[in-house]
Amino acid sequence: MANRPVLDFWYEFASTYSCLSALRIEELADKAGVAIRWRPFLLGAIFAAQGNGKAPFSLSANKARYLWRDVTRSAARDGYAIVMPEGFPQNALSAARVAMAGREAGWLPAFSKALFRAQFCEGRNIAEEAVLTAALREAGTDPSVALAAARNGDVKARLKAETELANSLGMFGAPTFVTEDGELFWGNDRLEEALAWARDGR
Amino acid sequence: MANRPVLDFWYEFASTYSCLSALRIEELADKAGVAIRWRPFLLGAIFAAQGNGKAPFSLSANKARYLWRDVTRSAARDGYAIVMPEGFPQNALSAARVAMAGREAGWLPAFSKALFRAQFCEGRNIAEEAVLTAALREAGTDPSVALAAARNGDVKARLKAETELANSLGMFGAPTFVTEDGELFWGNDRLEEALAWARDGR
Repeated sequence: MANRPVLDFWYEFASTYSCLSALRIEELADKAGVAIRWRPFLLGAIFAAQGNGKAPFSLSANKARYLWRDVTRSAARDGYAIVMPEGFPQNALSAARVAMAGREAGWLPAFSKALFRAQFCEGRNIAEEAVLTAALREAGTDPSVALAAARNGDVKARLKAETELANSLGMFGAPTFVTEDGELFWGNDRLEEALAWARDGR
Repeated sequence: MANRPVLDFWYEFASTYSCLSALRIEELADKAGVAIRWRPFLLGAIFAAQGNGKAPFSLSANKARYLWRDVTRSAARDGYAIVMPEGFPQNALSAARVAMAGREAGWLPAFSKALFRAQFCEGRNIAEEAVLTAALREAGTDPSVALAAARNGDVKARLKAETELANSLGMFGAPTFVTEDGELFWGNDRLEEALAWARDGR
């Protein structure tokens, strides 16, 4: 375990392609012998920092239509059905705060996957505390403790620092995978390539 | 031959990812038993028609840097080195006019590949007539005949009609692959999936 190479998995809770990766990364990483560090961040803040950087879905009606189709095909290949959630993109700030508060906790991956499933398999709104609570419970942790930690003022500063780090590392979208030697891979369809790089290097 | 399913390969001469596909599509299509219809078009006209649709490379400095890195990695996997051409993106109007004039000619694939290699492997400027001439010669056709055909007024109308068709089919980027049943696949990294769909259907 200790000697496994580490791959950083930067993800945004409102992102469909982040969902696709979250629901398959653990099995692939295990096979590749790579440890995953889950790093929730706020992609909207990156878009804002980059001025004219915009969410891919907002660029044109043709692109938005295609991306939903592509996500649907990818999920079907992975054995599940994606549903359009209530409102898209959703407000993922509360989700990111909870996740950031629990960054070092063992429940972060399970919580993240539960929340992605709630949003993109069941069409729930992850801005609602009831949805966050259910995901925390599903991940085996005490929701009231985690939600209180998320309200801690320190979490806001930590999220901001992560966003700035993501920007300085060269990110502009999610998911992004970053190897220990600083190689970036953007998008769910680069996950296999990122794992191979993490394991074997260039 | 006659019964092979057909996959439309829509490409833009100034597009790096179109180059990656052009240089590998024939071998993959042969293996899949799929016939490729080469369809050059003007992506810039699509971006213009879609108002806020912008070239991916222009969205943010981080994204531009990443895309070059990603293209470089992809080309290396295919066994060649991509070079940044003189100016990017280049003016591909003349190239598209020549290609459109030769749409029904047997030399279109060879010409297109030669032009992509000139631009992205040798760093040449495809707006120059000398570069077009060399690519036509490499493709085994008479450059003066092809260049004269490209200046025919009819070509402009045909290019415009193709752009409008591309837009109405749902396109927003290049390369795009379209199956006979109307399924769209965007990007060099969807080529294998597009060929499988063309061959097997959904």
